[in-house]
Amino acid sequence: DPSLRIFSLSSNRALAQEIADVVGIELGKCSVHNFSDGEIQINIEESIRGCDVYVVQSTSSPVNHNLMELLIMIDALKRASAKTINIVLPYYGYARQDRKARAREPITAKLVANLIETAGATRLITLDLHAPQIQGFFDVPIDHLMGVPILGDYFKAKNYSKDEIVIVSPDHGGVTRARKLADRLKAPIAIIDKRRPRPNVAEIMNIVGNVDGKVAILIDDIIDTAGTITLAAKALAENGAKEVYACCTHPVLSGPAIDRIENSNIKELVITNSIALPEEKKIDKIKELSVASLLSEAIIRVHENLSVSTLFD
Amino acid sequence: DPSLRIFSLSSNRALAQEIADVVGIELGKCSVHNFSDGEIQINIEESIRGCDVYVVQSTSSPVNHNLMELLIMIDALKRASAKTINIVLPYYGYARQDRKARAREPITAKLVANLIETAGATRLITLDLHAPQIQGFFDVPIDHLMGVPILGDYFKAKNYSKDEIVIVSPDHGGVTRARKLADRLKAPIAIIDKRRPRPNVAEIMNIVGNVDGKVAILIDDIIDTAGTITLAAKALAENGAKEVYACCTHPVLSGPAIDRIENSNIKELVITNSIALPEEKKIDKIKELSVASLLSEAIIRVHENLSVSTLFD
Ligand SMILES: Nc1ncnc2c1ncn2[C@@H]1O[C@H](COP(=O)(O)O)[C@@H](O)[C@H]1O
Ligand SMILES: Nc1ncnc2c1ncn2[C@@H]1O[C@H](COP(=O)(O)O)[C@@H](O)[C@H]1O
Repeated sequence: DPSLRIFSLSSNRALAQEIADVVGIELGKCSVHNFSDGEIQINIEESIRGCDVYVVQSTSSPVNHNLMELLIMIDALKRASAKTINIVLPYYGYARQDRKARAREPITAKLVANLIETAGATRLITLDLHAPQIQGFFDVPIDHLMGVPILGDYFKAKNYSKDEIVIVSPDHGGVTRARKLADRLKAPIAIIDKRRPRPNVAEIMNIVGNVDGKVAILIDDIIDTAGTITLAAKALAENGAKEVYACCTHPVLSGPAIDRIENSNIKELVITNSIALPEEKKIDKIKELSVASLLSEAIIRVHENLSVSTLFD
Repeated sequence: DPSLRIFSLSSNRALAQEIADVVGIELGKCSVHNFSDGEIQINIEESIRGCDVYVVQSTSSPVNHNLMELLIMIDALKRASAKTINIVLPYYGYARQDRKARAREPITAKLVANLIETAGATRLITLDLHAPQIQGFFDVPIDHLMGVPILGDYFKAKNYSKDEIVIVSPDHGGVTRARKLADRLKAPIAIIDKRRPRPNVAEIMNIVGNVDGKVAILIDDIIDTAGTITLAAKALAENGAKEVYACCTHPVLSGPAIDRIENSNIKELVITNSIALPEEKKIDKIKELSVASLLSEAIIRVHENLSVSTLFD
């Protein structure tokens, strides 16, 4: 179908190529260049008049650069008369700034939604939003995919019996996600229940649920500096877990993250390529799974006006 | 007047402080912080409910970072119930991408205007837009100030007689600007008339106007890599100019710019602080003039509902 086009920007070229391969088309031609002063220059190098265009880009680090690249590309596509401009955003940067927690804070996740719409996007396909409410920040249609099935299949293949394992949420906010993974693995859940008895006193890590003698699988949406997840892994071991795995959809892995994981009791960290892992962060403990088939399937279904929600069965 | 507030973001703190000093108030309190993964966090640390807020920020390098800082700040101010949100943008990044010069190019200067308005700005005060047409990219009111009077006053103080000097535009696009400076100095103008006889043949630098035996003053709006300006200076010397000065409003000065200026026959480069000059770019040949009084005067007049255009008399 010559009206279907997929373009890659800078953040996830390998993933975009994989997606195009699965869909069975070549990536669209466009040049993305930085001028000497750091301004981004984009030129689309083939006609896309009347086409349904899919742009693959995560707003991962460097977040402001990658976001501007996306906005400029949308502007270029709009002016080049694309019929629809569909953003495939495996990782949604600024998703954690999704509410006013204190007075006079911005809600940057909503600002980003407005910017993407203002530039001219007509649809968003994204993966594991930090808060599902971010869907409501958009007026254009949004397909919200889940990483849990991909992570679940990986652990299923390890063939643990359901009594051997426990799925652990590192905090209260992640219990729904842990429950979903547990359903797929027919396993029980546990929750790390952090609380600070008084200000300036160390947090107490209490574990709700039974982890003794079990293989514990920690799950989160984002692992950023890896402080929470490595402390959780330690607490699990102290409470008798015999092995600790961790998994997440979005490997932000900033600052001390790699060192912390390397030096932790986490046996393996399972991630997806929603954010490209740079060479210097590739360590033996990290296992990367691809979201390419999930995203290509979503692209094909959107393009053929089929339901995307059935992807989760 | 307690309803007038001025905030500084990261790009031009020294200039913002100077502006606040001239206006006679303290800078508003806000924290601007980068998370470990590079996402920007802003918190406004005083109530600005019902206030007229002025935010000083240039979208100079790092342009995408500084632009996002500005957009996030606007979002925070809007949600904190500011009465008006006035952006003082001494340098407008992406201004050179102001038209489709080739097929399927973006018009990023217009995108930036849309982003600033979408975030919630209610007015813009800016300086020497690369193209005055960019004013029309905005639906909110815009005050467009000129750097020429400041640059002109500096050269006036050198007390050259009008027969000694000639004001030179480095290209056809800058003739109107050169004419304005020439008017203030009651001097004649000349134009560097570049043309390429055939593709892949060196450009010929022809000079329209008389520069022989004169002090030539080159003027441009932006000096970026300094290629144009240093070649123009060389051509002027070859055509008999006895001394060459250069001046511009916006010292982008990226890549090889400082080396080129250092090694050129330019005697002095006069710039403004619309873009903060980092320490490592401070060389003896560069003379920095401040736009603080111009911008503070504009802020005061806007706040008092007075005409800003009279600033150019
Ligand atoms: N990029 C970031 N890095 C670290 N913390 C963040 C980031 N963005 C937002 N936050 C903070 O993370 C918290 C939101 O996380 P959560 O409570 O898990 O939704 C808020 O306190 C935010 O201020
Ligand atoms: N940041 C930049 N650095 C260098 N050249 C640019 C930049 N932005 C735009 N341009 C190019 O500069 C030209 C516009 O400059 P002008 O003809 O002086 O208006 C166009 O060819 C643009 O592609």
